[in-house]
Amino acid sequence: MAARLVFSALSGIPRIRPGDDLAEVIGQALEREHIRLEPDDVIVVTQKIVSKAEGRHVNLSAVTPSPHALELAAETGKDARLVEVILQDSRSVLRTRPGLIIVEHRLGFVCANAGVDHSNVESPDGSVGEWVLRLPSDPDRSAADLRQALEARCGIAPGVLITDSHGRAWRLGTVGVAVGAAGLPTLLDLRGQPDLFHYKLQATVVGLADEIAAGASALMGQAAEGRPVVHLRGLSSDGPPGRAADLIRPLEEDLFR
Amino acid sequence: MAARLVFSALSGIPRIRPGDDLAEVIGQALEREHIRLEPDDVIVVTQKIVSKAEGRHVNLSAVTPSPHALELAAETGKDARLVEVILQDSRSVLRTRPGLIIVEHRLGFVCANAGVDHSNVESPDGSVGEWVLRLPSDPDRSAADLRQALEARCGIAPGVLITDSHGRAWRLGTVGVAVGAAGLPTLLDLRGQPDLFHYKLQATVVGLADEIAAGASALMGQAAEGRPVVHLRGLSSDGPPGRAADLIRPLEEDLFR
Repeated sequence: MAARLVFSALSGIPRIRPGDDLAEVIGQALEREHIRLEPDDVIVVTQKIVSKAEGRHVNLSAVTPSPHALELAAETGKDARLVEVILQDSRSVLRTRPGLIIVEHRLGFVCANAGVDHSNVESPDGSVGEWVLRLPSDPDRSAADLRQALEARCGIAPGVLITDSHGRAWRLGTVGVAVGAAGLPTLLDLRGQPDLFHYKLQATVVGLADEIAAGASALMGQAAEGRPVVHLRGLSSDGPPGRAADLIRPLEEDLFR
Repeated sequence: MAARLVFSALSGIPRIRPGDDLAEVIGQALEREHIRLEPDDVIVVTQKIVSKAEGRHVNLSAVTPSPHALELAAETGKDARLVEVILQDSRSVLRTRPGLIIVEHRLGFVCANAGVDHSNVESPDGSVGEWVLRLPSDPDRSAADLRQALEARCGIAPGVLITDSHGRAWRLGTVGVAVGAAGLPTLLDLRGQPDLFHYKLQATVVGLADEIAAGASALMGQAAEGRPVVHLRGLSSDGPPGRAADLIRPLEEDLFR
């Protein structure tokens, strides 16, 4: 039989609120789909539901923009309170254009708006206001915690991947990338492995976790919160498990900043 | 039932030589796997086998490096004849480091080594020499031709995606990207589509073809020529079909060159 990767979007995931038990929500959804976890399975979840469960909401009406935020807001035409939240999560601002702020997030990601998410964010407690969501404070830790909780719930520890959508320097369109990972290889180092004709591959390190995040994102879609959890079967992962942080190019190797 | 994306690597794909009929090779492989094409299916193939079928081989022993190639070879420690082939396929050289040349390919891709491939390249005609492979001269056209040939062979025109592996500016590891496409959306424009809470999504254009290319690449692997063809089922593609060229960010919108 053909080698297969099967991505299945779990249906019936409810709206997630602060404090919700994601492992329980995912465990129930797996049961509804009659999926029994196997050790090489991977559970892919969007950053959005992890951030919601962790209560990473910010009410913009409670934010007072700094002078720097006011300046950047004027430059870009963005809401100064949103810019303030972006700056609080950033190490540095790399580029700005009308409507666009590209930063180095304090976690190391180079991305627009510091990953601060303002679509599909409802009030966490029913109060009025315009809410945005910050990334989890430590997404690799969130992934490891979810993996452990899934093991407690389901008896098997799957790989866990937390995804976000990033733009690219030279290509249009966002793609899913891994911002948190546990229990699966994130970078696959094929260097030194001989190819078919015994030529040593010189520079092949594969961003495996990003490839999986992208494939899952093609199924998750972007507009609605309808498919925030994807189950993946078929990955045969030879390498040692890694972190999503391992995928971030160190500043000293960055040729394009 | 859960929404699914199923990537299946077709087994038994032989080594491809110049002039081989890829549609016939793929048609036979589908039959061996008992897969009957459906209209929304996508056939994902590596650039390598398309280039081989199109005879895009270059024998390095027949290449005479230009002065510019000799200079860049000295700077980077790369084979001057390989550098010459890279330069012939490039519009401009963006960055160089020991072992690394990043260019704008004349097709618009920003990538290492102008996509010139030197692993798993056997002699096309049995003659001695060290061979490399250039990208197809017009990969979107190659994809459209393969789609048409598959329709003639199988009675159904699937989407066709030609993939290559590219590095990223800020992230480590290569990921699969679309270098040729036909019969499926490549960019999915969600702008203006209301989200769950009726907030208008402002800037969401999804690089769908790159997400699919990445997912397929996670299955194809990198080191061997063993899995150059992947069949994808489950994509429900609402948008109009596009080209892989649509994914290239125009130079005037590039903030990082």
